[in-house]
Amino acid sequence: MAVCTLYTTQSLNSTCSISTPTKTRLGFNQKQVVFFATGKRIVKRDGGYKITCLADKTVVIGLAADSGCGKSTFMRRLTSVFGGAAEPPRGGNPDSNTLISDTTTVICLDDYHSLDRTGRKEKGVKAIKDGIAVEKPIYNHRVRDLLDFSIYLDISNEVKFAWKIQRDMAERGHSLESIKASIEARKPDFEAYIDPQKQYADAVIEVLPTQLIPDDNEGKILRVRLIMKEGVKYFSPVYLFDEGSTISWIPCGRKLTCSYPGIKFFYGPESYFGHEVSVLEMDGQFDRLDELIYVESHLSSLSTKFYGEVTQQMLKHADFPGSNNGTGLFQTITGLKIRDLYEQIIASKAAAPLEASKA
Amino acid sequence: MAVCTLYTTQSLNSTCSISTPTKTRLGFNQKQVVFFATGKRIVKRDGGYKITCLADKTVVIGLAADSGCGKSTFMRRLTSVFGGAAEPPRGGNPDSNTLISDTTTVICLDDYHSLDRTGRKEKGVKAIKDGIAVEKPIYNHRVRDLLDFSIYLDISNEVKFAWKIQRDMAERGHSLESIKASIEARKPDFEAYIDPQKQYADAVIEVLPTQLIPDDNEGKILRVRLIMKEGVKYFSPVYLFDEGSTISWIPCGRKLTCSYPGIKFFYGPESYFGHEVSVLEMDGQFDRLDELIYVESHLSSLSTKFYGEVTQQMLKHADFPGSNNGTGLFQTITGLKIRDLYEQIIASKAAAPLEASKA
Repeated sequence: MAVCTLYTTQSLNSTCSISTPTKTRLGFNQKQVVFFATGKRIVKRDGGYKITCLADKTVVIGLAADSGCGKSTFMRRLTSVFGGAAEPPRGGNPDSNTLISDTTTVICLDDYHSLDRTGRKEKGVKAIKDGIAVEKPIYNHRVRDLLDFSIYLDISNEVKFAWKIQRDMAERGHSLESIKASIEARKPDFEAYIDPQKQYADAVIEVLPTQLIPDDNEGKILRVRLIMKEGVKYFSPVYLFDEGSTISWIPCGRKLTCSYPGIKFFYGPESYFGHEVSVLEMDGQFDRLDELIYVESHLSSLSTKFYGEVTQQMLKHADFPGSNNGTGLFQTITGLKIRDLYEQIIASKAAAPLEASKA
Repeated sequence: MAVCTLYTTQSLNSTCSISTPTKTRLGFNQKQVVFFATGKRIVKRDGGYKITCLADKTVVIGLAADSGCGKSTFMRRLTSVFGGAAEPPRGGNPDSNTLISDTTTVICLDDYHSLDRTGRKEKGVKAIKDGIAVEKPIYNHRVRDLLDFSIYLDISNEVKFAWKIQRDMAERGHSLESIKASIEARKPDFEAYIDPQKQYADAVIEVLPTQLIPDDNEGKILRVRLIMKEGVKYFSPVYLFDEGSTISWIPCGRKLTCSYPGIKFFYGPESYFGHEVSVLEMDGQFDRLDELIYVESHLSSLSTKFYGEVTQQMLKHADFPGSNNGTGLFQTITGLKIRDLYEQIIASKAAAPLEASKA
């Protein structure tokens, strides 16, 4: 059984392509960001992914997260920051996480999405139950080396459970037992192949229960942490007020009135799997989006192109899940940082084409 | 037995004066700040203080604190901010807290200082032991109404005890028992007449043991709070990063290296005796004064006349007690705020002389 592999070849073609295991060929322009998303190990006996033309004008971003953890929403926010409306490939599965816009291509390596939801569940659970062996996780070192930047969405068990309850029980009528069984069934696979990827990520969005309400178990109010690795080329972590110091900030006060339990930010240097990181944290949720511009104005190194761009993006997609809390905010900020990283990489390649072709 | 009273009369004289109970007449110029300091109720049978010419170009600042709580140091910092070297009046007690410079006059109504230290102690303790009754505290409402601004130095019992031990035992060879007895003897008087004054103060400097070291009882590292009343004319509270919000800030990190136990700032709105106040807090101490410029650059509404003025003032008096912690920092900042208040009051009187003469 082969695992997904990502090949890179130098190419002079003006278009690049990816061959997927389902034989779909996705063409994409050279000057694009390719988001390479995976939420599941790839179980594919007879093939792999093949991406060509990576080294030229294409920037590849890796995104990993467990199933049902908001990859689709994240991808839609990211492609929106790049200025295009992302659509599933024509003729493909409309539920697919594979999205294409003028400037971005999101390739979701989670093959669940090639089936309908029922089929996916059956196939996925069956594969796990059968104990199918996998040789390597999707983010093996060869794949990691190809990525210009990688992101991990780390949803804590408590929140994951609350989200599943909301989606599968309230919206789809599944039983609590079947949800618990499905989570339990996924666990060994998740712990072996998905979870270890976070230590290699350049940015991790961690979603935890709130600390503003003692012993909260509703899972509705979230504490979200954006963990940003220091020393990553073309990536300067966002900070609050004073770079490199430790700050907690409750913006609610004389200028901003927040309803219970309020909003609390934290910023500071930490260590994450032995790496030096900066952490920006938001606990609580916005009552109104004018609170967001107040927060945005106090954050630095956001890589916005104009004052209020974060707020504008959030307003544009106010109907997306998490727009009133740190998940939406940090997804949007991450999108801006990736756009900045993309532009810097493209500029550096344009400035030194010879060097780039050697690399 | 009469208590100190402060009379004000309109005067057209070009100099103003104060008559003290000891019959000293202190002349001071019209355009001055008069710091009116008291650390003790005034027990004076046959007279009182008489200050004339208050309403014209003189600004009167009240300062209250218990004996041995740093009034002298504070006064020297304050007069330094106004640009003069303050000296005791010629021919007077060189240990006096009464200080005169070109622009400021500090009148210390603590009559302990008119005696030498031994005499003061005997007289003071005797008066307290005799249970001498006092009709009113020094800051009765008539006195308070005369003050343009008032400050209270609030030293917690733990710190007061540590300071007394340092001064009276280590430096003067007193016994621990006599120090304890002296503190106990002062307590009823302090609690009845000094302590209640803080509720009327426009600014309170509170000195507490550190919270950075669990169960610290050395009293060497201090947590100092500058409590600033909101809505006081000509006085805008200092703030950290974001006015009106709640912030804690540990400046030690990537840019600033601090030795154990570090430095922690806090800023936020609070309530103090029913008044809305802003609190700025510093716990810990500076290793070096370049740390201070880093802190100064992040504080706003300091009323400095040039970048780094707080640090310059602190460096100038680095030998004063408390220069490495929040007591020195907040005394200096308070001095700057008073200078600003003074200049605003003088300017407003100059702009509306008719109105001022009516007041």
